[in-house]
Amino acid sequence: MTRKRTIERRWVLALAVAVIVAAGAQLSARQSLTAEWRAQHERQIVDELIALVAIPNVAATNDADLLKNVALLTEMFRRRGFTVEATRDAVSPVILASLDVPQPRGTLTIYIHYDGQPVTASEWTRCGGPFTPCVIGPSGRIALGAGVTSFSPDWRIYGRSASDDKAPIVALVSAVDALKAAGHNPAWNLRVVLDGQEEAGSVNFRRFAAERAGAITSDLAIMLDGPRHPSGRPTVYFGVRGGAGLTVTVYGAKRDLHSGNYGNWAPDPSMRLAQLLATMKDDNGRVLIEGFYADVTPLTPTESRALDEAPNVEALLKKEFAVAQPERAEERLERKLNTPTLSVLAMESGGGLDAPARSAIPRLAAARLEMRLVNGLVPAKQTDLVVAHIRKQGYFVVLDRDPTDEERVTHPRLARVDRRGGNPASRVSMDDPMGRAVVAALSQNGVVPVLLPTLGGSMPYGSFSDQLKLPTVGISIVNYDNNQHGPDENLRIGNLWEGIEMLASVLTMAK
Amino acid sequence: MTRKRTIERRWVLALAVAVIVAAGAQLSARQSLTAEWRAQHERQIVDELIALVAIPNVAATNDADLLKNVALLTEMFRRRGFTVEATRDAVSPVILASLDVPQPRGTLTIYIHYDGQPVTASEWTRCGGPFTPCVIGPSGRIALGAGVTSFSPDWRIYGRSASDDKAPIVALVSAVDALKAAGHNPAWNLRVVLDGQEEAGSVNFRRFAAERAGAITSDLAIMLDGPRHPSGRPTVYFGVRGGAGLTVTVYGAKRDLHSGNYGNWAPDPSMRLAQLLATMKDDNGRVLIEGFYADVTPLTPTESRALDEAPNVEALLKKEFAVAQPERAEERLERKLNTPTLSVLAMESGGGLDAPARSAIPRLAAARLEMRLVNGLVPAKQTDLVVAHIRKQGYFVVLDRDPTDEERVTHPRLARVDRRGGNPASRVSMDDPMGRAVVAALSQNGVVPVLLPTLGGSMPYGSFSDQLKLPTVGISIVNYDNNQHGPDENLRIGNLWEGIEMLASVLTMAK
Repeated sequence: MTRKRTIERRWVLALAVAVIVAAGAQLSARQSLTAEWRAQHERQIVDELIALVAIPNVAATNDADLLKNVALLTEMFRRRGFTVEATRDAVSPVILASLDVPQPRGTLTIYIHYDGQPVTASEWTRCGGPFTPCVIGPSGRIALGAGVTSFSPDWRIYGRSASDDKAPIVALVSAVDALKAAGHNPAWNLRVVLDGQEEAGSVNFRRFAAERAGAITSDLAIMLDGPRHPSGRPTVYFGVRGGAGLTVTVYGAKRDLHSGNYGNWAPDPSMRLAQLLATMKDDNGRVLIEGFYADVTPLTPTESRALDEAPNVEALLKKEFAVAQPERAEERLERKLNTPTLSVLAMESGGGLDAPARSAIPRLAAARLEMRLVNGLVPAKQTDLVVAHIRKQGYFVVLDRDPTDEERVTHPRLARVDRRGGNPASRVSMDDPMGRAVVAALSQNGVVPVLLPTLGGSMPYGSFSDQLKLPTVGISIVNYDNNQHGPDENLRIGNLWEGIEMLASVLTMAK
Repeated sequence: MTRKRTIERRWVLALAVAVIVAAGAQLSARQSLTAEWRAQHERQIVDELIALVAIPNVAATNDADLLKNVALLTEMFRRRGFTVEATRDAVSPVILASLDVPQPRGTLTIYIHYDGQPVTASEWTRCGGPFTPCVIGPSGRIALGAGVTSFSPDWRIYGRSASDDKAPIVALVSAVDALKAAGHNPAWNLRVVLDGQEEAGSVNFRRFAAERAGAITSDLAIMLDGPRHPSGRPTVYFGVRGGAGLTVTVYGAKRDLHSGNYGNWAPDPSMRLAQLLATMKDDNGRVLIEGFYADVTPLTPTESRALDEAPNVEALLKKEFAVAQPERAEERLERKLNTPTLSVLAMESGGGLDAPARSAIPRLAAARLEMRLVNGLVPAKQTDLVVAHIRKQGYFVVLDRDPTDEERVTHPRLARVDRRGGNPASRVSMDDPMGRAVVAALSQNGVVPVLLPTLGGSMPYGSFSDQLKLPTVGISIVNYDNNQHGPDENLRIGNLWEGIEMLASVLTMAK
C-alpha cells in the first residue's frame, strides 16, 4: 500500500477508531488474558530467550554461530505455524517467517534482527560473559532451579542481544502463543523478516528487500528494535538516524622514535591528532565543521509538538549515567536525536594504554569518527565536509591509502582519511493512518505512548519507508538502560512482559 | 675519588697529555692491532652478540629469561678473567664484574645494562622477531654458514637490545680480548656494572649503588649506553635527561552509551581529552603549561660552544625519518636535548582502533604523557605543573584513583591523574680532567668526537655523578638510527667494530 491511498485509509481509520472505542472492554479483556497467559508461562518465555541469547551472534564475524541462530529461529517460528525460509547467504542469512490467517485485515511486515554488536568478553561482569546469559535479581544471580516459575519485572537478563534485538523476537512469538491460547489468531497476515546483519550494515537484508519486494510489501512495516524512551513509557517512532563514518590517521616520523633522543624533535602525532580533533567540536559538543548542520530538514509542527510532549528525562539520565553535564546542554534529548552528531568512537596511539609502556614517540595516531545523520543529510556529502575541515586546518589529506615518503617529507601536516560509506536517515509522517492505528492499539488503559520522530539507532528503516514506500513505524519494547552495544547488555524482564502485551494488541489491532 | 681532588688531578692530566702526545705512534699501533685482531675474529664477535640478543630480556617482566641473561653474562666475563658476582634480587639482578690488573693507573667503573624495552613481536618485520636475531645485508638476510667470517660494516644485526644495550657489552669484552691478544692488559682496574632494570627504573641498581658504593667508587664512571650523534661521529656525553610521567584519564558517562541513542547527549571523552591535550602544546611543539621551562639550568659557555660545534644533522634526520618539519623547528637537535619535553606516548579510547568497531561512545579516554627533564627540574614539581594546568582548564582532578559517582555527577570536567614518579636529570662539567682524558683517548687519527652536555636517554647517571660524586662521562657506540625502544631495533656492525677500538683506547688511556 502506498501513501497515495492515504485519503481512502483515513475513512478506514475513522471506522477503526469507532470500533476501538466500542470494543474497549473487549480489548482490555484480551490484554488481561495475555497477561494471565504470560503469568502462567513466565519460565517458558525466559528459557526461550535465554536459549536464544546463548548462541553467539556477533554480526558478520562468525558464520557457524550465526547459522545456529538461524536454525533455532526457524524452529521457533515453525512451531507457531509460520512458514519459514532463509536466504542462502554464506554469512548472516535473512529469515522470512510468514503466517497467513483466516479473514486477515491486511498484512503487517515486522522487522527484527538476530545479530548483535561485537563483544569484549573480559569487560562483561555479570553472568558468565556475553553468551552465557543468566537472570540477575537485587541480590545477584537467580538460580534457575526447576521450581522457579515466576520472575519479578525488575529482574534482568544479561547477555549480548538480550535487548538488542532478541527480546522482541521472543515477545512476538509469545504474543502469538498468548493469542492462540485464548482461542484467537492475529488479525493480520504476518511477514516477519529477521535480519542477521543489522549491526554490520544490513547488506544482505537490503538486497533481499530489493529482490523480494513483493514478499514483504504490506499495509504497514513495523520495526521492532531500539529502546523505549527513558521515561519507560511505550514508545513509537517514525524514523531513524542515518550514519556515516571515517577514520583519521595523523603521522609523525616514519618510525617510533626514542622519546629521550628525539623528544622535542619528533613530531608528536597524538598531540597533533588531539589538536585536530579539538577544532571539530566546541566545549558544549556543538560541531564546528562548516556546513555540518546546514542541510538538516526542519521538524514539522506535529513532530515538534510530539517532542515537547515527551516526558523530560534529563535528571533521570544524568543520575543513571553519572553525568554532570550532557553535550548540547541547552537542548533536551528528544531534540538532540533530530540533530546530526559527530563522536569519537575509538582513538589509539602507541599501542594503547594496555600495551607495555615504551619510551618512544609513536609514528602515528588515529581516531575512528562516527556521524549520526538526520533527514536532509547525504552521508557522502557529510563525510566530505569533515575532510574539507581537516584540509582547512592545513592538512594534506590522502584518502583510503598510506602516504608516500615523498608526501611525508613534503607536508608538515599529513592525514590519512578512510571513509566508511554510510546510510541516510529516514523519517515518515506522524500523521499516517496506519501509524495512528498502532498508536491507538498501544494506548490502552490510560497508557500514552511517547511518539518520537526519530529513534537513535540506524536500522534499515529506509528499505521499507523509502524503497518500498510503506507506512513504517517502530515500536520500542526494551528498557533504555539496557547497555546495548556495550558490555553487560541486559533486558529488564518487565519490559518483555509488557512487550508481549503490546504486540498482542498490535497483532489484533483494527484497520 | 671526589671532585675535591680535581686540582691534584689537573697536574696528573697535564702529565698524561704529555705522555699521550709522546706515545701517539704507539697508540695508533695499538689501535691498528685491535682492528687487525677484530678482522680475524669477526664471526666470533657477531656470534657472541647474537647469542646474547637471542635471550629475551624485557625489563622486569620475565625473571626466568633475565636470569638466563645473567648466566651467560657471568660466563662471558669470567672467561675474560673477571671476578663476577650478581645480586640476589628475584628480578633483574645487578651484575658486578671486576678485573684487577698489575700496576693499574687507577680504576674505571663501567655501566652497561642488559635488559631491554618491551616488545610487540607482531611489529617486527626483520629476522624472526625481537629475540631471533639475524644479520641483514643490502639484499636481505645473510645466511650464517660456517664459511662466513667477514661482515660488511653496513650490515646490521636486528633484535631487541642489539643496540640498546647489549652491543656495548660485547664491544667491551672484545676490547679486552683484543688487548690480551696483543699481549696487553687494560691499564686500569675495571668494575663493570651490568644493570638488569635500566628500562624499568633501575630500582635494583640504585639500591646496589647505595649499599655497595665502595665496590664501584673509582676514578671515573663511564656509561656505555645511548646512540652516537646522528653525524655518526664518536660521541661523548656529560649528562642525561631525567624523566617523569603521568597518565590522564577523562570521563564521559558511567557506561559506554549507544551512539545513536545518546549521541549529542553523552559526553564524548575522546573529544574532551583531545581538547585538554590541545591546550598543552602549541603547533610548533612548545609546551604551554605555565612554568614548564622556568627552572631549567642554563647551559654554560663550554656546553653552549660544544653544541654549536656539533655537526648539523637536521637534513639527515628529516630524510631518515621522513619528517617535513620537526617540533620546535627553530632550534637544532642538540639544543632540544637540553630543553624539557612533553610527549604523548600512548592514547586510547573505545578499546583502540584494532578492537571490533562498536557503535558506542566510550566511557573514558586516556593518554600516557611523558616528560624528559633537564638540569634544574624536579620531577614531582614538573608533574604538579601539569596537574595544575589540567585544573586550570576547569577540570576536577582525582589523583591515583577512580572518581566516585558523586564526583561524576558534580563535575562536568573530571580527570584522573596517575603519577608515575620520575628521576631528575644529571649533568657534570665538561671541563673535568678525567672526562678530557677520555676525549683525548677517543681523538685518534684525526677523529673529533662530538661532545654533548646531555644525551637523550635517562639512565641512572646520577647514581655516579650525583650520589657517588664521581667524574662521569658517557660514550655512545651504536648507530643513531637503531630504532631502539621500537620494533626492528638494530645495530650497524661497523659501529660494533669501532666500539671495540674506542674501548681498547679507553681501557689503555693515560691518566
